[in-house]
Amino acid sequence: MDTITPFQFSLVYNAFSFTFATMAATTLFLWLCRSQVAPAYRTAVTISGLVTAIAAYHYLRIFESWNASYTLQNGVIATTGFAFNDAYRYVDWLLTVPLLLIELVLVMRLSPEETSSKTLRLGTAAALMIILGYPGEIATDIPTRAIWGTLSSIPFVYIVWELFSGLGSSVASQPAAAQGLVRKARLLTFASWGFYPIVYMAPFAGLTGSTATTTIQLGYTIADIVAKAGVGILIYMISVRKSQVEKHDAPAYAERY
Amino acid sequence: MDTITPFQFSLVYNAFSFTFATMAATTLFLWLCRSQVAPAYRTAVTISGLVTAIAAYHYLRIFESWNASYTLQNGVIATTGFAFNDAYRYVDWLLTVPLLLIELVLVMRLSPEETSSKTLRLGTAAALMIILGYPGEIATDIPTRAIWGTLSSIPFVYIVWELFSGLGSSVASQPAAAQGLVRKARLLTFASWGFYPIVYMAPFAGLTGSTATTTIQLGYTIADIVAKAGVGILIYMISVRKSQVEKHDAPAYAERY
Repeated sequence: MDTITPFQFSLVYNAFSFTFATMAATTLFLWLCRSQVAPAYRTAVTISGLVTAIAAYHYLRIFESWNASYTLQNGVIATTGFAFNDAYRYVDWLLTVPLLLIELVLVMRLSPEETSSKTLRLGTAAALMIILGYPGEIATDIPTRAIWGTLSSIPFVYIVWELFSGLGSSVASQPAAAQGLVRKARLLTFASWGFYPIVYMAPFAGLTGSTATTTIQLGYTIADIVAKAGVGILIYMISVRKSQVEKHDAPAYAERY
Repeated sequence: MDTITPFQFSLVYNAFSFTFATMAATTLFLWLCRSQVAPAYRTAVTISGLVTAIAAYHYLRIFESWNASYTLQNGVIATTGFAFNDAYRYVDWLLTVPLLLIELVLVMRLSPEETSSKTLRLGTAAALMIILGYPGEIATDIPTRAIWGTLSSIPFVYIVWELFSGLGSSVASQPAAAQGLVRKARLLTFASWGFYPIVYMAPFAGLTGSTATTTIQLGYTIADIVAKAGVGILIYMISVRKSQVEKHDAPAYAERY
């Protein structure tokens, strides 16, 4: 393991602590406010909070693992011999990425059949994408990383297609007041996800050693905050907007589960 | 204790952390969503969350015990001399397996007499199955393992018979919309439980040393996720489906505890 500068160590250290606080705070906000939305949207808001709760747990573990890997004493960084456990990220994504797609489908309030089939297909594709990415992440050579990265991008392309084409007509049938927000949530999901493959490919750009480590850790951290806390808050805003519209236009429908 | 490779150590380590996160997340989901089902189903959903909460606690302990048994420093694994405490699994099952059968009976909403007698009989058989399995699990020789394994399979066969024959007519009397899901929950319980005896018999297949340890730990972990988190989510889905049907067809019955 290459040595990191004290500045790089502190930057990543503080970023991890910041992300834990952000995820935990978003969780509490979403769960405390779930009674403010109509019953039909409570599952979407609950799952959004679940995603940030799972991320908060993993950022606590990542933070501790980072601390166990290095010691900063008298302004000098030394490695302790304990490897930084990057697998926490993949373990986290295996749980949270399918749930993120499920919250996006749930907030649209489709028919029960459509909800079941979409969540099953998108959830499976998301899990497959994460599983196929991992062998590349731990590979030490570029070709292996490239092969698994390519395989992992097949379900990714399917998810993007499903979000923009398959769910396109469902977005058009959302109430006018919420349509813009639903489009924004979909775009934010896509944009933040597009960030992961870029970080994944950092070693291809010749970024190695401590600069690569710092860039990868900060990159994944920012992407996680946008994709989980950012999208979670949007899901809540969509739920509030749709609850208001439905209560006004169709009170009986608004109260239905 | 035989030595494990760094890859095997990390695999089991990450699997334990993943399982803790999965169990804790499922618990929070079930408890937050219990208000979404009719009063009659809230006990089943609460107990489903209890099962995953107990499992989350034990996986945290198992994770810590695994860490205390080995150290991975500078890419080399060393045993610390502290034995990995596998008994946590049996302690967990002694509590969770009877509760799993109770949640399955409760979600069927049988008459109070039937509910009492079924939960008592199935709960006792489940506890007996776990107690009889343990002496075999800690046995160092194959014959002792085989004897206790056989004794443990007597209550197991009784449970399977009760689930498929004794509860068969109760399944047929479930509302049509929920029947498929109830059958799925019963099958998932049976299929995931069928996995435990296979893992139990791993030493018979000549699997020894670190490969046996890794296989057994991963096998039990996957079976636990399916049997507890998977069945728990199914119980919730059955409760939602039945609440909707009853609210529509028999509103007074739906509100009854």
